[in-house]
Amino acid sequence: MTVGAVEAGGTKFVCALARVDTADPSKLPELLAEESVPTGAPGPTLDIVRRFFESAGARHGAAEAFGIGCFGPIDPVPGSPSWGRILATPKKGWIGTDVAGFFQGSFGKPVAFDTDVNAAALGERLWGAARGVESFIYLTVGTGIGGGAFVEGRLLHGASHPEMGHIRLCRAPDDAFEGACPFHGTCFEGLASGPAIEKRWGKKGTELGPEHPAWELEAHYLAQGVASLCLALAPELFILGGGVGGRPDLLRRTRELLPAALGGYRRDVNTTAEASRLLVAPGLGTRSGILGAAGLAALSNDPGFA
Amino acid sequence: MTVGAVEAGGTKFVCALARVDTADPSKLPELLAEESVPTGAPGPTLDIVRRFFESAGARHGAAEAFGIGCFGPIDPVPGSPSWGRILATPKKGWIGTDVAGFFQGSFGKPVAFDTDVNAAALGERLWGAARGVESFIYLTVGTGIGGGAFVEGRLLHGASHPEMGHIRLCRAPDDAFEGACPFHGTCFEGLASGPAIEKRWGKKGTELGPEHPAWELEAHYLAQGVASLCLALAPELFILGGGVGGRPDLLRRTRELLPAALGGYRRDVNTTAEASRLLVAPGLGTRSGILGAAGLAALSNDPGFA
Repeated sequence: MTVGAVEAGGTKFVCALARVDTADPSKLPELLAEESVPTGAPGPTLDIVRRFFESAGARHGAAEAFGIGCFGPIDPVPGSPSWGRILATPKKGWIGTDVAGFFQGSFGKPVAFDTDVNAAALGERLWGAARGVESFIYLTVGTGIGGGAFVEGRLLHGASHPEMGHIRLCRAPDDAFEGACPFHGTCFEGLASGPAIEKRWGKKGTELGPEHPAWELEAHYLAQGVASLCLALAPELFILGGGVGGRPDLLRRTRELLPAALGGYRRDVNTTAEASRLLVAPGLGTRSGILGAAGLAALSNDPGFA
Repeated sequence: MTVGAVEAGGTKFVCALARVDTADPSKLPELLAEESVPTGAPGPTLDIVRRFFESAGARHGAAEAFGIGCFGPIDPVPGSPSWGRILATPKKGWIGTDVAGFFQGSFGKPVAFDTDVNAAALGERLWGAARGVESFIYLTVGTGIGGGAFVEGRLLHGASHPEMGHIRLCRAPDDAFEGACPFHGTCFEGLASGPAIEKRWGKKGTELGPEHPAWELEAHYLAQGVASLCLALAPELFILGGGVGGRPDLLRRTRELLPAALGGYRRDVNTTAEASRLLVAPGLGTRSGILGAAGLAALSNDPGFA
């Protein structure tokens, strides 16, 4: 099956035409064509995306379905009047944009529409670190913090979608930072996102050396946030990715701090070695989202695909 | 179908023999006999429970299956070597008790075993405030704080079960209380359970008048905890019960504080009226757990029951 996959982000839209083996879901999709489009205003951006799929489809065969993992907040609830749209995002021009409708209108094919993090979670479930795992969280820590979850064998939805990056944390005693989240101040994202690091220390994380105290504090907050989400959802596996979360040193230190943050409330996580089995890097690196978007298209075609 | 239902708590075991209408799951189970057994040592307690079901079964017909909603931590994972057992509970004598195995051995019938809060959630889903709702949380706030969830049309499990009462909260600026949780200090339970109220104010909640500042602080923490769990799981409905959580004044004030705690991150909860649709009292009052245990037995017999 040929699918169109879109990882729609606030910085860029990654688009891929891919072939998914519906007879063998364990096979990684074959990428036929791929393009990255900077996120400008909705009209021109989507126009370039449309032309990519037209042109790639002409060369390789048209997509039979589309899967879109989209930055949020979005409405992913099938049947809702605003299904397929971006909601009150800080990226002003995009508020109300009917992303899924644009693809339906342009190509007349089925469109699966979910959060970027749920798409990434699905990618990890199908072809990455969570193969065979029935219950896990995928969390990205970068410009923002967002999480997707796969529970009881399905992607978690509910009323719209989780906003895992905005749970409350408890500020470290020696941290006087007022937080970077305009809505919640010192929530998880407000304390531990890339912009929080930059605002607290006056420099981007990429400019801070590995010995800078920023990283010890960051690991402290990651351990606390990961622990709270584990206590809320009881995942078998926790995948930590993103520009900040994907730093190997930080993953290692977070694993060391995680057992204390859990305080014995995960009987399978009492040592760093055990924490290293629970908390892992994405198996697909930075490709979870785009591959997962291909998975969304395949899954919408066949609910047994995952 | 005649079922044995057990709400196994740290203070008492509520046991009921009930008739469930498998042809019409919407019908409230008919209670044939019921008994409350104080929780003593495991052996004598379970012995009284066994005799209750023998005697009630002789009068009304024997239970064809058992459903147990049990205090935790427990192992509810079918196929696990410790399935059906109580794990590292503060109630020392009960650690390792094979509750489900006791019923299997005594009656030779199928046994469904889950957390007390998942049982209560199922009760609310079948016959209470969550009828027809595909995604909700049931939280009890009393001697402890615990939550069960129904997501994507199923009870949420994962690696063992959630421990929603132990997520981190952010302490109020004017609250110097060190917390009552021996494992996490100022987690949700450590700040807002019944014992936390008693330890902070030197009096039981039942002895504090409605104007006591304890309640404003309690509502603050409930709003914060409810908000974090809503952001982690995106439930359509949030049921708040328990000896503390079930106080009508407290529910009202928590609803008033909830929109600010969510900070705009639930577009359906911006006013007290909207918060009152999200956050509700149990439809079954204090009967969610025992009725839900009957539901567990019926559900194990027929996965389509819920």
